[in-house]
Amino acid sequence: MLVMDEAAPESSSGTSLMSPSRLETFSDGVFAIAATLLILDVRVGVGDLGTNLRHIWPSYAAYAVSFLTIGIIWINHHRVFTQIRHVDRTFLLVNVAFLMVVAFIPFPTRLIAAQLRGGDLEPAALTYGATLTTTAIFFNVLWFYAASGHRLLRSDADPRVVSGISRSYLPGPFIYLAATLTALVSPTASVVLFGVITVFYIVESSVFGRSTA
Amino acid sequence: MLVMDEAAPESSSGTSLMSPSRLETFSDGVFAIAATLLILDVRVGVGDLGTNLRHIWPSYAAYAVSFLTIGIIWINHHRVFTQIRHVDRTFLLVNVAFLMVVAFIPFPTRLIAAQLRGGDLEPAALTYGATLTTTAIFFNVLWFYAASGHRLLRSDADPRVVSGISRSYLPGPFIYLAATLTALVSPTASVVLFGVITVFYIVESSVFGRSTA
Amino acid sequence: MLVMDEAAPESSSGTSLMSPSRLETFSDGVFAIAATLLILDVRVGVGDLGTNLRHIWPSYAAYAVSFLTIGIIWINHHRVFTQIRHVDRTFLLVNVAFLMVVAFIPFPTRLIAAQLRGGDLEPAALTYGATLTTTAIFFNVLWFYAASGHRLLRSDADPRVVSGISRSYLPGPFIYLAATLTALVSPTASVVLFGVITVFYIVESSVFGRSTA
Amino acid sequence: MLVMDEAAPESSSGTSLMSPSRLETFSDGVFAIAATLLILDVRVGVGDLGTNLRHIWPSYAAYAVSFLTIGIIWINHHRVFTQIRHVDRTFLLVNVAFLMVVAFIPFPTRLIAAQLRGGDLEPAALTYGATLTTTAIFFNVLWFYAASGHRLLRSDADPRVVSGISRSYLPGPFIYLAATLTALVSPTASVVLFGVITVFYIVESSVFGRSTA
Repeated sequence: MLVMDEAAPESSSGTSLMSPSRLETFSDGVFAIAATLLILDVRVGVGDLGTNLRHIWPSYAAYAVSFLTIGIIWINHHRVFTQIRHVDRTFLLVNVAFLMVVAFIPFPTRLIAAQLRGGDLEPAALTYGATLTTTAIFFNVLWFYAASGHRLLRSDADPRVVSGISRSYLPGPFIYLAATLTALVSPTASVVLFGVITVFYIVESSVFGRSTA
Repeated sequence: MLVMDEAAPESSSGTSLMSPSRLETFSDGVFAIAATLLILDVRVGVGDLGTNLRHIWPSYAAYAVSFLTIGIIWINHHRVFTQIRHVDRTFLLVNVAFLMVVAFIPFPTRLIAAQLRGGDLEPAALTYGATLTTTAIFFNVLWFYAASGHRLLRSDADPRVVSGISRSYLPGPFIYLAATLTALVSPTASVVLFGVITVFYIVESSVFGRSTA
Repeated sequence: MLVMDEAAPESSSGTSLMSPSRLETFSDGVFAIAATLLILDVRVGVGDLGTNLRHIWPSYAAYAVSFLTIGIIWINHHRVFTQIRHVDRTFLLVNVAFLMVVAFIPFPTRLIAAQLRGGDLEPAALTYGATLTTTAIFFNVLWFYAASGHRLLRSDADPRVVSGISRSYLPGPFIYLAATLTALVSPTASVVLFGVITVFYIVESSVFGRSTA
Repeated sequence: MLVMDEAAPESSSGTSLMSPSRLETFSDGVFAIAATLLILDVRVGVGDLGTNLRHIWPSYAAYAVSFLTIGIIWINHHRVFTQIRHVDRTFLLVNVAFLMVVAFIPFPTRLIAAQLRGGDLEPAALTYGATLTTTAIFFNVLWFYAASGHRLLRSDADPRVVSGISRSYLPGPFIYLAATLTALVSPTASVVLFGVITVFYIVESSVFGRSTA
């Protein structure tokens, strides 16, 4: 359980500045808004509506992949907080920087949607991939700052869960970097990979979730 | 009441990843944002303002129906959570997918508003209806995944409330599908039906709420 | 104190469907988003930036009045909830309808800002006023539904606070209706009145808050 | 620990109108939305996408500085609330006015981004600086209203933390005012200063956070 009031013993060490739960509320707000804003970029042009609605399928695909990706980030973000007892200033600032990158996702999503039917897909895929790679890097910084030396963890944090989180988050930046660099050879393959990564995570999580229920 | 800390006994089974209450906070954020963003699509064109303000009545109607529909979904979503004790990964992911469809509602709402005064209403009504039908399907998946075999329910879940929820959510997809397919015959009738379904739910709930108070 | 778990004794009467606190969270989300979205309509045109920034003063004024008005509505909304013990379906639906009108405020705000420097101010002022009058009406419906016969109030609700709320909310619709109808004679006077009402509330509250601290 | 229910002893003095925690939830919503909305103003023009993406670097810089600035304001805002026991009407209203200025930040951010590559940077920098200076002023009003004579503080508020907050917030308006006035001599220098102030705060906080952990 998150400790919401450690003010008394810690007020002199600068860690009483925020409860983990308020940090989660603010973070959840950014996740929810970034995901929901994505719909503002799903737009039809002029001309026959039926044709237009089929024509903009890249907008639907980009919307779905980015919404689900933000949803998965949100799930993982909370998983970190189940193991955290308190937060310090550095953790707060890393979290703000992390949210800054998450809230950036709608921009490259828009680029992908605009370029997926022909157009200049390479820079769009590189921007999208760079954003997701940076998100994954910040996520690892956030987690390992909290976990190294048990700095911010609960005293009863489950070692298996802690090492499980470490193991599952570490490959993220490399996977996203590989998908990003693929755009230099084939932008389309790169974009397909971003979709596949999302689907893979969902299937894997779902299977895992069921097998242990 | 929702159990917010089942981490200890369940940490080894993968269900400690999120408290139901944080799931509700994030979901409420998406509901609130999706509903409030609808106003961004209520816009007047150039020309005499008084005339324009009367001319865009479909925008007001579409705003009202979609806002109330999202409000009703929110009420029902919480009703599910009053019976849930914990969540697992699959439930989390189904919920994210469900929210993805809810957050999509502003897009077809905009289409309806743009086409309701003449224009090409059929594809707009089909898109709107398909979105609401999908929302209703995901809602049922969410509920029956939680309820089947009492998988995620509270041990003291009221059997009457549980079966009441099952009974009242099951017809949703069929009702919305019927209203959607009506667009193939008469787009206007289809749009009127979406409004009628909303009003019907409000009146029925209100009467039921009063009779049992 | 709000009672968050009345499920047991009330689950058979349909009132276990939502805790007041979740209702507040959703409502606060709508208030916060509606207020913050207002900035999207503060925009400069082309041409010399310095001149432009002075030219759009009506946008700043409209932003300020609407933001503060939504803030005041939020304060009053919470004041209601300090006296409420539980909610029923009718109350939930009235609250959703109320939020629908609050979330509509950015639309007429945009109209006022666009028309305040010359232009066709009368329909803009009438739309703005009609929105605020409707908000005030729904607010009264919300409160008197909860308060009449102590339907949803806490058993220990302070009679003086309850009658104080009743007394202070009742004039709202009439004051806003009067300011709205003023637009038929002088749209400018009407708009000035909306600003004056907001300032008056702030000054009055502030003085009252200080005198009783 | 925040006192969430002081209704009984204070209901006659008008201070039972809101719990500090609900005030924080609403404020966090505004912070999260204002920060996340910033991405809507990062947009590419027509023409070669790769060139365009490099061309709009001022948009990225403005996005980052404003997002981080709002994040820092959020951290400081919560720091105030760790010391507060209850709120009164005046505090509520000052907080709404403060949020009104914070929610305004996306507007001058857009101006800076549009003018940073040549263009008319002086009025943009003055508007941005005036907004941040006003934010800092309101923040001080908020804090000193709460702290003077221990008006709203917890009875066990740590005197060192209280005087630490007072000392660290007081220079804010002067620092921002100086950076703002610099725009009259060199708009570019002024904009660089806004970035430097943000970076300085992050580095200083981070170092401080680590040294006391």
